[in-house]
Amino acid sequence: MKLAKSPLAPASMPTLPPVAGVRLAARPCGIRYRGRTDLMLAELARGTAVAGVFTRSLTAAAPVEWCRKALAGGKARALVVNSGNANAFTGGLGDASVGRIAGAVAKLLRCRKDEVFLASTGVIGEPLPDGRITAALPKLKGALGEKGWPQAARAIMTTDTFPKFATRTASIGGAPVRLNGIVKGSGMIAPDMATMLAFVFTDAAIPAPVLQRLLAGAADRSFNAITVDSDTSTSDTVLAFATGKGPTHPTVRDAKDAHLREFVDALESLMVELAHLIVRDGEGARKFVTIHITGAASAKAARRIGLAVANSPLVKTAIAGEDANWGRIVMAVGKAGERADRDRLAIAIGGHPVTEDGKVRPGYDEGPVAAHMKGDEIEIAIDVGVGRGRATVWTCDLTHGYIDINADYRS
Amino acid sequence: MKLAKSPLAPASMPTLPPVAGVRLAARPCGIRYRGRTDLMLAELARGTAVAGVFTRSLTAAAPVEWCRKALAGGKARALVVNSGNANAFTGGLGDASVGRIAGAVAKLLRCRKDEVFLASTGVIGEPLPDGRITAALPKLKGALGEKGWPQAARAIMTTDTFPKFATRTASIGGAPVRLNGIVKGSGMIAPDMATMLAFVFTDAAIPAPVLQRLLAGAADRSFNAITVDSDTSTSDTVLAFATGKGPTHPTVRDAKDAHLREFVDALESLMVELAHLIVRDGEGARKFVTIHITGAASAKAARRIGLAVANSPLVKTAIAGEDANWGRIVMAVGKAGERADRDRLAIAIGGHPVTEDGKVRPGYDEGPVAAHMKGDEIEIAIDVGVGRGRATVWTCDLTHGYIDINADYRS
Repeated sequence: MKLAKSPLAPASMPTLPPVAGVRLAARPCGIRYRGRTDLMLAELARGTAVAGVFTRSLTAAAPVEWCRKALAGGKARALVVNSGNANAFTGGLGDASVGRIAGAVAKLLRCRKDEVFLASTGVIGEPLPDGRITAALPKLKGALGEKGWPQAARAIMTTDTFPKFATRTASIGGAPVRLNGIVKGSGMIAPDMATMLAFVFTDAAIPAPVLQRLLAGAADRSFNAITVDSDTSTSDTVLAFATGKGPTHPTVRDAKDAHLREFVDALESLMVELAHLIVRDGEGARKFVTIHITGAASAKAARRIGLAVANSPLVKTAIAGEDANWGRIVMAVGKAGERADRDRLAIAIGGHPVTEDGKVRPGYDEGPVAAHMKGDEIEIAIDVGVGRGRATVWTCDLTHGYIDINADYRS
Repeated sequence: MKLAKSPLAPASMPTLPPVAGVRLAARPCGIRYRGRTDLMLAELARGTAVAGVFTRSLTAAAPVEWCRKALAGGKARALVVNSGNANAFTGGLGDASVGRIAGAVAKLLRCRKDEVFLASTGVIGEPLPDGRITAALPKLKGALGEKGWPQAARAIMTTDTFPKFATRTASIGGAPVRLNGIVKGSGMIAPDMATMLAFVFTDAAIPAPVLQRLLAGAADRSFNAITVDSDTSTSDTVLAFATGKGPTHPTVRDAKDAHLREFVDALESLMVELAHLIVRDGEGARKFVTIHITGAASAKAARRIGLAVANSPLVKTAIAGEDANWGRIVMAVGKAGERADRDRLAIAIGGHPVTEDGKVRPGYDEGPVAAHMKGDEIEIAIDVGVGRGRATVWTCDLTHGYIDINADYRS
């Protein structure tokens, strides 16, 4: 099934500058379709620090298990990602495939196997034809360069309707460091599933434990704050690599170092942009929805309430129908399982207050709210009236397009 | 929007016999639409015991809060239910409406206010026109009779496409007691929401604390084991009434009484049948799906895994597309957050084993599984390989019909 580019895709994409210490290449190796660019290799400078967060799925794919273990070493020399086959639910065969690919890359780049990080996305339950990957590695190595970002972003796509990448610059003690990121999102074709893969590269020198803390924090406010359909892939992977080959900057020893303030903001802002690109390519999405939660018992409670609203099929279909259906929002807040004061709940849509003190606002005029619902950027603000916890989450609407993609297609 | 009768509706409905101590009546009182039967009254014999389970929503509607408090007394003389308005998110006005209705019924039937139980379903956020209800009560009282079951079932419908009721007989120490139940399900029209109301009546003599235990247990294996779209209403209510006016039977003192064994089975079987009727009227449903989970750490874990599968939009759309997409089932098991052994997971569809030992079965033939997927009763069995916990849950598929009902309609 050829999918049309999402109507929510950005009009143009940025040009990504080189990141010192990172060289990339991508090419077709025929994993599932002939001639489709389905394999990328990133070579990372010696001494590159690595951090990662992964799916919470208890049926995680083989490469996820590999990366979790390899992360203990804290160092990375290579990242290999293929699309077309997720190497998930493949039992011992899958683990063996991962081992062979890591071994071949280690030999080629003269590094340790546990410095090779892998991710796979695509069909599940079929053995990964790893021989096609290892056979393509020498040519990939020959093609490595500093400009391969859009090609790499394209190689990791499955049913994404556009390649996704972003860039930032930040100062660490006056030294301008770079951050580039590529991501693939929520497209899926039966029997594939919505896998989220994100890779962030910086030329800053950040020790692995510090990078891990920064990545985990930023992931909570970006990738863990978006949802398309509430389903969790067996392969979700976010990896960050810090080469330390950029301009010299003050040594950083912990995540709260004042020199890191701008870098932390840039990392979070980059990851939020990448996360938004995923939502903008959600299956069948016609509207990009921002949900602000305030007044919750904690930030975590706020995020859970936000995700309950964002995942509610009734809320998502109401948005698709351009219906200012605040009753469904009340329902979704109620089901989140977090404290909320029914009689202090305040909901605003598009900046227009709809309810206050637990009931519809006296003289509520639906006109401007209905007009807002007709746009393609929807803003919902909910104060649940019990505390100071706040969070923002993002989602898309639930449309006939989602059903088309996921039900009407037979692989 | 006039909805066609669900294709999964039973071909015929049973005739409900009288239940000694219960008299019912229903009539239109114009709460939302003129001429629609939207109000029912059940008069219960003096001494009737009552039990209830309610929505876990933290934004529960006014009648739910009323019933929770009234339950402390353990006695019921009346049940009043209206459709057309849920009296939810109505603040202090809603509580006042409930108080006025309970007061009027108590006066009419000469009972205490806390012996009057209420439920409302329909539009939320609008004040309940309780004057129309109290004005209709004298005529309702005059019309009370033993045969009003189908009319009562119809009065509580919102966008249900057919009235839902069932009956059982059970022996308690040789005495045949009766159980009748009426339920309304998952239909909704914006800005209404999917409210589940269920009322069970028996002529057995069961003390309130015992009835409460039996009801809670049976609800876990019936109404709490179904899902249409994962959304939780502010008004979900299950009440059970035991009049004690049936044939004399041995006194029962606790829920584990051996005399109750057949009654317990009948109660659960009745509630499962009522729960199935709700799923069969799920918005847009074309397939009725049964999911058996075995091998879980506990029965509770099994139910959570089953509901994760049943609520997964990817699983539900695959079923709508008649796609034997076991990869999505693996994903949903993984996201449930309960222990599962990826390498021992065994999935069968329609009785045909698909996976074993964490990978697709050698020589797996999709033919018979694909044929099963074309039917309108789908069976999925999943063994997660870690323990002895088991559960069965039921759901329906996710179709264009769901989007039509919930997105394309504007109230």
